[in-house]
Amino acid sequence: MNGKSAKSGTLYLVPNLLGVCDPSDVLPARTLAIARRLSHFIVETPKAARAFLKTVSPDRVIADIAMLPCDPAKAAIEQCAAWLKAGIDVGVVSDAGCPGMADPGAAFVALAHQIGATVVPLVGPSSVLLGLMASGMNGQLFTFHGYLPSKPPDRDAALKNIDRLVKSAGGTHIFIETPYRNAPMIDAIRTTVSGGVVLCVAQALSSAQETIISKPISQWTDADRLRLSQKEPTLFLLGAQT
Amino acid sequence: MNGKSAKSGTLYLVPNLLGVCDPSDVLPARTLAIARRLSHFIVETPKAARAFLKTVSPDRVIADIAMLPCDPAKAAIEQCAAWLKAGIDVGVVSDAGCPGMADPGAAFVALAHQIGATVVPLVGPSSVLLGLMASGMNGQLFTFHGYLPSKPPDRDAALKNIDRLVKSAGGTHIFIETPYRNAPMIDAIRTTVSGGVVLCVAQALSSAQETIISKPISQWTDADRLRLSQKEPTLFLLGAQT
Repeated sequence: MNGKSAKSGTLYLVPNLLGVCDPSDVLPARTLAIARRLSHFIVETPKAARAFLKTVSPDRVIADIAMLPCDPAKAAIEQCAAWLKAGIDVGVVSDAGCPGMADPGAAFVALAHQIGATVVPLVGPSSVLLGLMASGMNGQLFTFHGYLPSKPPDRDAALKNIDRLVKSAGGTHIFIETPYRNAPMIDAIRTTVSGGVVLCVAQALSSAQETIISKPISQWTDADRLRLSQKEPTLFLLGAQT
Repeated sequence: MNGKSAKSGTLYLVPNLLGVCDPSDVLPARTLAIARRLSHFIVETPKAARAFLKTVSPDRVIADIAMLPCDPAKAAIEQCAAWLKAGIDVGVVSDAGCPGMADPGAAFVALAHQIGATVVPLVGPSSVLLGLMASGMNGQLFTFHGYLPSKPPDRDAALKNIDRLVKSAGGTHIFIETPYRNAPMIDAIRTTVSGGVVLCVAQALSSAQETIISKPISQWTDADRLRLSQKEPTLFLLGAQT
């Protein structure tokens, strides 16, 4: 009951896999059943969404599924509104993980609330959530920053600010980086942030390549950095020792 | 591969249900299989953990499972270290949702990293994640605050600070409140925070009673507040309009 009007469709937020794995490793039966049933989707990238739907429904004719990229936004919002108002259930699927968390999707959820359609968030893998759980850091106070600035002086200023916040408030600070920049980011953290702050790097979460290293910055070595791939999706967490 | 030493056990973070529902609605097959297989657990509350394990394994003799409350911490940490060093796999289960996110568990994860045991975070329901997905708010920048201060003057100062942060940085601010204080919290938000800020209240997520209301504070009515239960776990989100 979401203030649903009598005949509007429901907007389902359908988590995608984070990487190569058996879908039943990371998606509950309910999420799988709804992903298999829906015939209309708003997607981050059609190619990734088709691959996802083929993985969860190998026998399905993917060409029969109505699929609209979320960008350009105006057209996607209008189509999503038309579907929902016509009583059609719509799924939102991003390229990896949970729509609306570090991923597109929020605009369609806001739309659904505006027109009184029910919004149903489904359970699935989120690198931010899995990384925080696996970090051993404070999970009562944390901030997700998305990407830090890419230019080194701005990035280092952001890292110094996080260092200050960790010391003053004790929360955990989470951010992502494009995989090929993992090594420079780790080097920047080791030279910019206080040695007593804990750095967790969580990579390829929920896949067979899952790698999680969490220890005070002063204990990080070049060998640790070399254990990390330059190709896998990577989450960085900085926080106080627990 | 977590820097695992040859014979140490693995620490699994096992999400619990958020409320009454079919476990397969919110737990992937892998999470269920590991919860059913593990024989040693660190738990937030033994009664809640036994109920969870009975739900996912109706035929299991729960008395055969070694279970230690996470508090007092010193005894639990020592026992967890002994189990892991003896090569025994250990599960961490909180009373609801994901251990380590708004819930106990971080200290045992930190311990596992210290002794070189592999840490495996499993997928399951998190009210913070589901609420953020369902809010339609900014998921690229968000902070989880846990509980705000309970005394009204301190609570209102925290709300005013969040109001300022929403306007200056545009992020989403998430917090929880004990269910019987939902109504006073909503009233405080309506009188303290700017009317253009969006308030989402997400209640009983992933259960049949799931209720999600998300709209600008200026549009919240007493009728909205009356739709919300004073008994269900509730998440509050404040953010800018998308």
